[in-house]
Amino acid sequence: MKRTHPGILREILATNLRRIRAEKRLSQDALADLCEIDRTYISGIERGLRNLSIDNLERLAMALRLEPWQLIRRQDVDH
Amino acid sequence: MKRTHPGILREILATNLRRIRAEKRLSQDALADLCEIDRTYISGIERGLRNLSIDNLERLAMALRLEPWQLIRRQDVDH
Repeated sequence: MKRTHPGILREILATNLRRIRAEKRLSQDALADLCEIDRTYISGIERGLRNLSIDNLERLAMALRLEPWQLIRRQDVDH
Repeated sequence: MKRTHPGILREILATNLRRIRAEKRLSQDALADLCEIDRTYISGIERGLRNLSIDNLERLAMALRLEPWQLIRRQDVDH
């Protein structure tokens, strides 16, 4: 499929995940263990390199005890 | 990766997309044209069969003039 937009959502997710993981004082390794996603994949998500599926978005959210939509909502409209 | 949950998020997305498309009086064909995603793939999303990527979630949202998170938020906590 042709890409017609720059993929801003990956950046929003990357920023949110880095922030939330820091708030919860979880290392990438610890989060990887919690959600059974490889640490290198977590690292890729946090750098906007991964086109994550919604199944994996859900796994991440469950591990972080959040709703999945909270991971992809812009922080500047989050409150 | 091992699946450890039933994939509720697909069902939330499916329900939301069917509802929003109906509200906007868009056929699956019309939406497919707008977001350049195949109509059969749209149909699969609406039946919870597709593990959509966030890039495609973003394409769908742009075509519907919504924020991507609005497509995966449960309707019963949406207001």
